Amino acid sequence: MSQQREEQPEGDLRNTGMSLKHDREWDYELDRIVEEVQEREAKTVGLQFPEGLKRRGPGVADDLRKTLPDDVSVMISGQPCYGACDLDTYMMKRTDVFVHFGHSPMKDSDKIIYVPLFSNVDVFPIMDQAIDEQLSKPEEDPDVGLVTTAQHMNKFEEMCDYLEDEGYTVHTARGDERLTHEGQVLGCNYASADIDADQVLYVGGGKFHPLGLAMEHREKHVVIADPVNNAVTVADAEQFLKERYASVHKAMDAERWGVIFCTKIGQGRWEKAQEIVDNNENAYMLTMDEITPDRLLNFGMDAYVNTGCPRITTDDGPQFHAPMLTPGEYEIAIGEKPLDELEFDTFHGTW
Amino acid sequence: MSQQREEQPEGDLRNTGMSLKHDREWDYELDRIVEEVQEREAKTVGLQFPEGLKRRGPGVADDLRKTLPDDVSVMISGQPCYGACDLDTYMMKRTDVFVHFGHSPMKDSDKIIYVPLFSNVDVFPIMDQAIDEQLSKPEEDPDVGLVTTAQHMNKFEEMCDYLEDEGYTVHTARGDERLTHEGQVLGCNYASADIDADQVLYVGGGKFHPLGLAMEHREKHVVIADPVNNAVTVADAEQFLKERYASVHKAMDAERWGVIFCTKIGQGRWEKAQEIVDNNENAYMLTMDEITPDRLLNFGMDAYVNTGCPRITTDDGPQFHAPMLTPGEYEIAIGEKPLDELEFDTFHGTW
Repeated sequence: MSQQREEQPEGDLRNTGMSLKHDREWDYELDRIVEEVQEREAKTVGLQFPEGLKRRGPGVADDLRKTLPDDVSVMISGQPCYGACDLDTYMMKRTDVFVHFGHSPMKDSDKIIYVPLFSNVDVFPIMDQAIDEQLSKPEEDPDVGLVTTAQHMNKFEEMCDYLEDEGYTVHTARGDERLTHEGQVLGCNYASADIDADQVLYVGGGKFHPLGLAMEHREKHVVIADPVNNAVTVADAEQFLKERYASVHKAMDAERWGVIFCTKIGQGRWEKAQEIVDNNENAYMLTMDEITPDRLLNFGMDAYVNTGCPRITTDDGPQFHAPMLTPGEYEIAIGEKPLDELEFDTFHGTW
Repeated sequence: MSQQREEQPEGDLRNTGMSLKHDREWDYELDRIVEEVQEREAKTVGLQFPEGLKRRGPGVADDLRKTLPDDVSVMISGQPCYGACDLDTYMMKRTDVFVHFGHSPMKDSDKIIYVPLFSNVDVFPIMDQAIDEQLSKPEEDPDVGLVTTAQHMNKFEEMCDYLEDEGYTVHTARGDERLTHEGQVLGCNYASADIDADQVLYVGGGKFHPLGLAMEHREKHVVIADPVNNAVTVADAEQFLKERYASVHKAMDAERWGVIFCTKIGQGRWEKAQEIVDNNENAYMLTMDEITPDRLLNFGMDAYVNTGCPRITTDDGPQFHAPMLTPGEYEIAIGEKPLDELEFDTFHGTW
């Protein structure tokens, strides 16, 4: 794997005014892809990138086309992609080699080549700062959980050692079958943080993952060491929680419910959706891949239950025309569960 | 078929401040659907409505659920739908009975029940007005073409007779295999207007179809008799044409091209897309279902060629970050065809 230039850390540039540059120094594992093409005598290669990396797609296609025989077609998925749960199944079925970049496998599959795109940004200075500023001293509370995302998985053991050397007892877990690696978190699954420690250190870019963690484990002190934006903060789920309670209250008056079944390969909970519709004659099953304000506005329901990605509900919920609840919140809104049982909706199982 | 109340003509209400109401007086052909469910011993029924009719989906589901056995699941597609080219194939494959409302079949298929939703609005008063205001008198030019959309196909013969009674010679055509009915137009196909008349009367709601007709047949006088909005106008493609020329000129400087292959069942032109990419090393194949400004912005190309729905190119083109051309316009932009060969992009064949 090639080194990322240290003077140009790339990652979450949303608020910096900078745009991602075509950077060929990431390791796209082109050799592995070319090998697979030769082995399968493939004529078509499909490439899928997550949103933030799509701009690099044409450059990767260039590099592949230079190496591959002329009669091999390379194409890039233009479908939105937010995780390994979100495979372009159209492309997967219609290409001989299908490459998914930026996520670790949700389960093993011969049909898909996963290229995780590990980050080589140096994580230790920001971990050091996190220890100084936000973690309890080891002599006060030695127990600390450690989690990270697919991009930093390659440094996970080193991170553990680093904390141990500082005097901490590091708690890590493998999570459930949706998670590929020990210590890995997803936006919808924090089973790897089910550990015996009151403080958890998240090492990685952005607040998306640690905010989910803070919602799921409200009793824990979740410290963010972000090596991409070079900042230490504490994940505060307060705003999300306020919005969740507000949405549940609003939805209590709803007469007609839209029950969303998401058709994305890794985001479907059919039994759950079916159960809700079966037990409420004013509920309607709505099926779709992308769940957007425009699409729901068409139906004009009083409220929605989203059995797909919970992060659409929690993070984008306020953008919709009517309250959107998780399945658990729906039970509260219709009076089947008390309000104090409101909890973060997590996703389990693979696709 | 039940009568639509005359005091409440429904249709294009976008600029009226009114919203569509749940109107059970349209004929959703529920008996036919129920029969099919019984015949196939179906356990799942999928309903797909075009955008403007999605709000009626829950009401139709209600009516079906009242009649069908309790163990039959009814679900509604939340995918965008803009034509018979735009089937929810996910739902089609996973339901025992799949019903597509609002469009005539693009080809016969046992898998799909098409419910055209004929409009029963009275078309003759507005045809009368069109004759008075915009068509040449029969004694000056008796030849007139007649076209309409799926919604008014049930009145087509009566419309022909009406014009003949007024003294016109009515020219109609069956179009090509993409069109189900004599005299039918689609947003992307006006083969039914390839007739020997300088004036064409379009009877139907909105300007979407006649504007395409005017782009395709620039030499013809296209009169719109809109019984839904109760207005007679003339289709003027001037604005569209200006935008087309502007886009082509802008794209002449493009270095990197995104070539869009649309994965919707009736909107794919694979050979065309493949040919462009094969002959331009700075062109990249991008595959997607919905073609939106957000999705293309991710790739940051200098220009795009859209081999999918031509109406996205012509009608929505100015909303994209870079010029988007039809395949024919692309040939002009790269210097393979002269500018005066610019023409409207039409779609042929079925899915």
